[in-house]
Amino acid sequence: MASGGEHHEEEEDYYGDAATIGALRRLYAGYPWVDVASLGPESSGRACACAAQAVRSVGRRVAFLVMRQDGATVQCVDAGGGAGGDGGMARFAAGLSRESVVDVAGAVSLPREPVRGTTQQAVEIRVEKLHCVSRAVPALPIGVDDAARSEEDVARAKAVSSCRRAGGQVVHVGHDKRLDYRVIDLRTAANQAIFRVQCEVENIFRQMLLSEGFVGIHTPKLIGGSSEGAAAVFRLDYNGQPSCLAQSPQLHKQMVLCDGFGRVFEVGPVFRAEHSNTHRHLCEFVGLDVEMALRDHYIEVCHVVDRLFVAMFDHLNDKCGKELEAIRRQYPFQPLKKPGYTWTPWADLNTEAEKKLGDLVRDRYGTEFYMLCRYPSAVRPFYTMPCPEDPRYSCSFDVFVRAEEIISGAQRVHVPELLASIATYVNAFRYGAPPHGGFGVGLERVVMLFCGLGNIRKTSLFPRVPRRLAP
Amino acid sequence: MASGGEHHEEEEDYYGDAATIGALRRLYAGYPWVDVASLGPESSGRACACAAQAVRSVGRRVAFLVMRQDGATVQCVDAGGGAGGDGGMARFAAGLSRESVVDVAGAVSLPREPVRGTTQQAVEIRVEKLHCVSRAVPALPIGVDDAARSEEDVARAKAVSSCRRAGGQVVHVGHDKRLDYRVIDLRTAANQAIFRVQCEVENIFRQMLLSEGFVGIHTPKLIGGSSEGAAAVFRLDYNGQPSCLAQSPQLHKQMVLCDGFGRVFEVGPVFRAEHSNTHRHLCEFVGLDVEMALRDHYIEVCHVVDRLFVAMFDHLNDKCGKELEAIRRQYPFQPLKKPGYTWTPWADLNTEAEKKLGDLVRDRYGTEFYMLCRYPSAVRPFYTMPCPEDPRYSCSFDVFVRAEEIISGAQRVHVPELLASIATYVNAFRYGAPPHGGFGVGLERVVMLFCGLGNIRKTSLFPRVPRRLAP
Repeated sequence: MASGGEHHEEEEDYYGDAATIGALRRLYAGYPWVDVASLGPESSGRACACAAQAVRSVGRRVAFLVMRQDGATVQCVDAGGGAGGDGGMARFAAGLSRESVVDVAGAVSLPREPVRGTTQQAVEIRVEKLHCVSRAVPALPIGVDDAARSEEDVARAKAVSSCRRAGGQVVHVGHDKRLDYRVIDLRTAANQAIFRVQCEVENIFRQMLLSEGFVGIHTPKLIGGSSEGAAAVFRLDYNGQPSCLAQSPQLHKQMVLCDGFGRVFEVGPVFRAEHSNTHRHLCEFVGLDVEMALRDHYIEVCHVVDRLFVAMFDHLNDKCGKELEAIRRQYPFQPLKKPGYTWTPWADLNTEAEKKLGDLVRDRYGTEFYMLCRYPSAVRPFYTMPCPEDPRYSCSFDVFVRAEEIISGAQRVHVPELLASIATYVNAFRYGAPPHGGFGVGLERVVMLFCGLGNIRKTSLFPRVPRRLAP
Repeated sequence: MASGGEHHEEEEDYYGDAATIGALRRLYAGYPWVDVASLGPESSGRACACAAQAVRSVGRRVAFLVMRQDGATVQCVDAGGGAGGDGGMARFAAGLSRESVVDVAGAVSLPREPVRGTTQQAVEIRVEKLHCVSRAVPALPIGVDDAARSEEDVARAKAVSSCRRAGGQVVHVGHDKRLDYRVIDLRTAANQAIFRVQCEVENIFRQMLLSEGFVGIHTPKLIGGSSEGAAAVFRLDYNGQPSCLAQSPQLHKQMVLCDGFGRVFEVGPVFRAEHSNTHRHLCEFVGLDVEMALRDHYIEVCHVVDRLFVAMFDHLNDKCGKELEAIRRQYPFQPLKKPGYTWTPWADLNTEAEKKLGDLVRDRYGTEFYMLCRYPSAVRPFYTMPCPEDPRYSCSFDVFVRAEEIISGAQRVHVPELLASIATYVNAFRYGAPPHGGFGVGLERVVMLFCGLGNIRKTSLFPRVPRRLAP
């Protein structure tokens, strides 16, 4: 405990600063640890202990603290017992800086009226013990409340303020400042939800593929050449050898495919030394990659994509309602229109053309998830299989969500004679190579487009863009 | 099809080289695609098509080909129909180079006697159509049979050969040559099994943690400083800024932990510019990392490790019997003895001491999976929490499997004043930081030690060691 002296001993058993969690062990022994989110009316009367972040102090005598754990918030009221009941605990609570981490122990109770402004509205905690285990600095560089405000709220508050009807100033937290203090920004309900949704997207990807006999692999990120041409590659020295970071697992996942693993997938970082600061590019992102042997036609890859994404969107809508709602409160978006229709383009598409096409498809077919097939060979990578009936076209496809390209896929050339350059790569096909195809998609992009977030920086925990390497 | 001319047309419908899989579509339309491994006596009489690699041609008239798909092998016999039944198909099969990829269509049948030397012993395929979709070069740089031989077999064959009783020479494929031609080496039954076991290890890790409320995250691999001191770090230029590859997700996973995600895990590459060529070090490996808020004591982390690894070992023994058996045939190993006992060391351990301790623990407690706790603070990283009762010791632990350290874990310092250096890192704890701890373990090391493989190069698809950057 922070201070000593015999006459303080009893008070410190009820509230104070704790130097180590071990010091609280004896005091909290009779209170089982529970999560704030798991509390409910059925917990009423039960003893509990919670570890949470102080959001704000409220009132003076009865309710005195709102605290937050994993996105759930609950109101704490003074049980009035212990330490003489002289209001010392309430004063201690009022003195806690926002975002300080506290342990509380007490009993769950039912408030007379639903609590306003907390996620737990039907229960509150009557606090018997309150200890601070980590003090936040008194002046936070950004406030969690400010970071959590929707653009609409900011605009409305500014309009009100310009009419001079309101006293308080609404702080707008800019995007760069958010990223500078990402360690605070990530505490908003929307961010908590975004990265839980991201985790779900990865899980569905993995579980669906595993259930269809795919094997999860890990290919090296440190490679000897550049994986797809020399542009936009990070170079480094590897114990005296020139090396670079893989721009995709393309070549290695194909090698593994030729090794008797008929269907493989990988989840791992992909590195692109991009110089463009757009809403959809990152210098490092998480690639979801698939490669599979083909039987009759590369449409078999498209069918996997279709099953995978329809399953993913259905699962997110069914199981992540709470998270999607939390995102929508700060960043309003419309649910994705149902998939999909197949199309054959006559040329590659630029961003503007993608947008226009997206509008057309949405208006005409009522969908915001669709695939285009058979791109001209000239606009696809060298390892893309030409169409057997007309080599000006390729066995390729792209998948679009909300009018933005999200997946690029194709059948690959497995005939070594058709491939120039890169010896290791070509050699891999000299020892018997099954016809195969696959696709790649960025995890951050899936979440951004599903949730209509408009900027990929919102769906990367610590985004890497051309000028940002920290935190 | 490879050749034209009207008088050949019928023959090519039955066998030949196929330029594209599309060309076979019409011919194979009546034969449903099945996996070699899925065939069984109940399939008898059914039409099927398989895509597989030619292992060897056998016999001349009846049985003519053994082929392999995803580690399963089956014998093919000539159905004697089509193309005049003049033995042309058998001659074509005999001319196929090993490892060429073929499509076959025919009917499943029951051989009079069990087939020897194939994984499918109770069924064979009576081939009606046979087409090669990818020809392997006639002289492979290493043979799959040679690469699949156990050390015991090699030694026995050498002994026999030195007695001049055997004509054929047994080729031993050295470790470097295996890695040079990894694209062939990975086709052995043992390697197919090793990487399926590795995929299972990752799945169990993920599923067990998800079921306990952990959230899967991805932290950046490109970082501004060096994550844990300056040694053994790969440096690179990031758009004009000095940068390096993360040696662990340590700092970022802790930051996320301070962000309201109470329990997180990550699976991702870890980079170490090691200069030592040992059996247990890689310059790039897959890290399984965990970080969690603590309530009372860092033993809470040890309990997660214990549940996780006991679940993992049980699952592998229960569900991966076929794979473990395939590994054992080439690399004999003893099943792991049951976990575990907890211990307190008085100093850090070097490799030799680890071995000796492992022997002692195995002999005395009958286990090869155990944890040691409370390492001296001096031998642990700066961010390790000292023991409250004696700061010369730390709230830390290591986990050992088969007498080798496999996991390193600890409670972290969450009090900024106790941390020097690295501003971003320290600042993360200034805004309210829960007491927390975690651990990290290498995926390749888990598989190596569970299967007693003795060298980590065996459990990495494309190992990166000081002098190897390809394939």
